[in-house]
Amino acid sequence: MKSANDPVARMLDAYRTSVLAKDVDAFVHLYDANVHVFDMWGEWSLQGIAAWRRMAEGWFGSLGDERVLVTFDDVQSFVDDAMALGYATVTYSAQAPGGAILRSLSNRMTVAMQRRGDDWKVVHEHTSTPIEHGTLKAQLQPK
Amino acid sequence: MKSANDPVARMLDAYRTSVLAKDVDAFVHLYDANVHVFDMWGEWSLQGIAAWRRMAEGWFGSLGDERVLVTFDDVQSFVDDAMALGYATVTYSAQAPGGAILRSLSNRMTVAMQRRGDDWKVVHEHTSTPIEHGTLKAQLQPK
Repeated sequence: MKSANDPVARMLDAYRTSVLAKDVDAFVHLYDANVHVFDMWGEWSLQGIAAWRRMAEGWFGSLGDERVLVTFDDVQSFVDDAMALGYATVTYSAQAPGGAILRSLSNRMTVAMQRRGDDWKVVHEHTSTPIEHGTLKAQLQPK
Repeated sequence: MKSANDPVARMLDAYRTSVLAKDVDAFVHLYDANVHVFDMWGEWSLQGIAAWRRMAEGWFGSLGDERVLVTFDDVQSFVDDAMALGYATVTYSAQAPGGAILRSLSNRMTVAMQRRGDDWKVVHEHTSTPIEHGTLKAQLQPK
């Protein structure tokens, strides 16, 4: 993880905190009004903060009494004056009320950010897992 | 597609041309020596131009007498002084020697570029297809 001045590092840290707290507003605050997402799950793409908020509400609302611990590995970032790029392996671990880890899932994540005055917003996010050759033809068409 | 001054638009055009020609050198020339790729196929990630060249050699070498026509849809780009980001839907269509389209496949593609003097290189690429909820648990672990 880079220094606290790295907008990518700050975004990932706030992502982790907001997911743990199931805080939709704090989560959505990280993203631009016109954010575009290639999400690992479901739709081919999502455009705009309203669609992204619905995703977060659905996700956090589905968790019941579990919490999601997020960790980032192999984080890399490039920061320019007004644009930043980051990518990492992100692991989501479901934690039971007693603290036990029930299951974990890792994705590949790319985020692109733009400066908005003193703040930075995610304008594009792409998460996925790779596909093995020769499998899953039915998965390989746009929705 | 944006103007010819957009490094993302130029990269996508050169990508299309080099794939059609099965020209490994021209393809690899678009990428930085330290390029990092989250590719749709196979490995969790690829690092460095040598690994990416091996991917291109394997891909182009597997095509036999077919050619691959690449088209980009819904292209979006953000260009800063020294950094650029682009994303699109990319469709690969296999063409028989007589011109018939044998099959097509669409991916989601994100590319991040950095300026290298008067040139631009891709430093990060991420391609994927979304996964349906509730499927493919075996796919969902890092390799």
